[in-house]
Amino acid sequence: MWRGGRDFDTVEIPLPEPGPGETLVRLTAATVCGSDRHTVNGRREAPCPSVLGHEGVGVVVSTNGGHLVDGSPVSPGTRVVFGVARSCGRCEICMRGLTAKCTSVQKVGHESFESDWPLSGTYASHILLREGQAVVPVPSSLDDGVAATAGCAVATVMAVLERAGDLSGRRVLVNGLGMLGLVAVAAARRRGAAAIIAVDPNAARFGLAQGLGATPVSSETGDAGTVDVSLELSGSPTGTRSCIDALGIGGTAVLAGSVSPVGATEVDPEWIVRGWRTITGVHNYEPRHLQEAVEFLESVGDDIPWKDILDGPIMADQLAEEFRRNDVQRLRTVVRM
Amino acid sequence: MWRGGRDFDTVEIPLPEPGPGETLVRLTAATVCGSDRHTVNGRREAPCPSVLGHEGVGVVVSTNGGHLVDGSPVSPGTRVVFGVARSCGRCEICMRGLTAKCTSVQKVGHESFESDWPLSGTYASHILLREGQAVVPVPSSLDDGVAATAGCAVATVMAVLERAGDLSGRRVLVNGLGMLGLVAVAAARRRGAAAIIAVDPNAARFGLAQGLGATPVSSETGDAGTVDVSLELSGSPTGTRSCIDALGIGGTAVLAGSVSPVGATEVDPEWIVRGWRTITGVHNYEPRHLQEAVEFLESVGDDIPWKDILDGPIMADQLAEEFRRNDVQRLRTVVRM
Repeated sequence: MWRGGRDFDTVEIPLPEPGPGETLVRLTAATVCGSDRHTVNGRREAPCPSVLGHEGVGVVVSTNGGHLVDGSPVSPGTRVVFGVARSCGRCEICMRGLTAKCTSVQKVGHESFESDWPLSGTYASHILLREGQAVVPVPSSLDDGVAATAGCAVATVMAVLERAGDLSGRRVLVNGLGMLGLVAVAAARRRGAAAIIAVDPNAARFGLAQGLGATPVSSETGDAGTVDVSLELSGSPTGTRSCIDALGIGGTAVLAGSVSPVGATEVDPEWIVRGWRTITGVHNYEPRHLQEAVEFLESVGDDIPWKDILDGPIMADQLAEEFRRNDVQRLRTVVRM
Repeated sequence: MWRGGRDFDTVEIPLPEPGPGETLVRLTAATVCGSDRHTVNGRREAPCPSVLGHEGVGVVVSTNGGHLVDGSPVSPGTRVVFGVARSCGRCEICMRGLTAKCTSVQKVGHESFESDWPLSGTYASHILLREGQAVVPVPSSLDDGVAATAGCAVATVMAVLERAGDLSGRRVLVNGLGMLGLVAVAAARRRGAAAIIAVDPNAARFGLAQGLGATPVSSETGDAGTVDVSLELSGSPTGTRSCIDALGIGGTAVLAGSVSPVGATEVDPEWIVRGWRTITGVHNYEPRHLQEAVEFLESVGDDIPWKDILDGPIMADQLAEEFRRNDVQRLRTVVRM
């Protein structure tokens, strides 16, 4: 239980009986991502007390008519990942296919323990999956730590790439080489991008991106040339600026990093019009993207150097200590729950 | 022949023999649109001397292996409209399907009489269509003046609507009720838009839009609410601003009016990201859009009140006089060539 700041404790409660459409999952692993660290360090608002953690993997204990993304029924014993969003499926926005922006959306790792969804985070032995939340089975080839990244980072990248369109033969700029950026580089390479320009001030991450197929251009040169597709995953104003400015004729900038106020940026309507350019945004993802994320992770296998990306595993009772670390280098810390 | 300013004269030259892929067309009508008036009044740069006019319709005189957009051969005697752009089909941008932005594009009504394409405008008895220019047959049900609008205004609207995506059940804002805007209103209605908010300071045009199915909201109220799709066809900075600001969750603004410098506008990256919003641009169109334009005009028939939109017809030798008029009310003047 997160009590605010860096204060965590362990609480025991009776396991809930799944209601209609719900599924109880025993979590085997969660991953600590940067946004949880932001929350704990007070740089991001969150309900409190709550169960934090929004990337996880586990095994179905019981279900009351829950369904997988492919429509088949959930079965006890199945190893699964799950969507960060629970959507109503009935509001106008859901009906349009943007369930991530459901008017009554709830999110894994973001709900108060005193709400109607106390077991909603992944830093716990169990999570109760709600009706209207994506559930996807995980192949045995995927390690727990790898599978857990599907539920937020990798699925979001799948949504970003869907908006980016066909990457075959395209020049692609990836700005920001956190978990999303590195996955984007690997995915762009597999989708046949002609060149992948990866930008991040962190040399180690830049090195990882090069290993995944990025063209060697350092952020210091600042000159990415023109590209067909740019993916803004850093959330920085300069990143947004360079992702827009880099667009050639017919180019598309997909912004996904700016999830907090960063101030406005300027665009020239004539430049948009005459160049058939597109600026678009993505926040979270749809159920199909979680399915694609698992398929991507299965197909990419060890082409992504997970040993350089994942830290740990640590045990659940080491979580409070993990949030006090000042020496975090890798992108995710795996927690055995 | 346009000599600059409001100076026109008539020149007789031998009819050219079509080269490979070329088609000679005897023009039966052209339409005078606002951008030609801008050129003649010095508000728009253009090569001079030249044959102006970029919307037209005519009958094939002879062809040297020319093809229609659907791939079938051009036949003498066929009544046709034609694309504004001639594209090489081989450059990187053409290969990507953006032939309107071909690196060596030439345009109807925009080439010097001393270039390699003297017979390139529609204010003439004949036009020589080049290889790499769209040609689409015109059904007999379409009057000359109506058919001529396909080649610029209507085809551009088809490109704009393609970028806008599915309009069924959507709230659509159309800003700027010139020829493009009125066609956009009519097309949005036929594509099942739930509401069409049309904005223009000109009361007569606003009235026409209402007749075509637009919801009555005057530009003076300025409050369009949020929409799913906005179409910016005025080119004004305030139009661009309101088309962006009106976007709801998942909304798309298609900008097509800003074809001259209007100054930058601000966008908030977080608002783009969190709302899955899209801002995109369209300039001219692809060959498929000309085909769609003709099909649209055929299907819409007299649901568009052409008598209130088209002026004339005037004769070709009245063109110079037409450009001196200060009392132009209707959106197009039809010229019998």
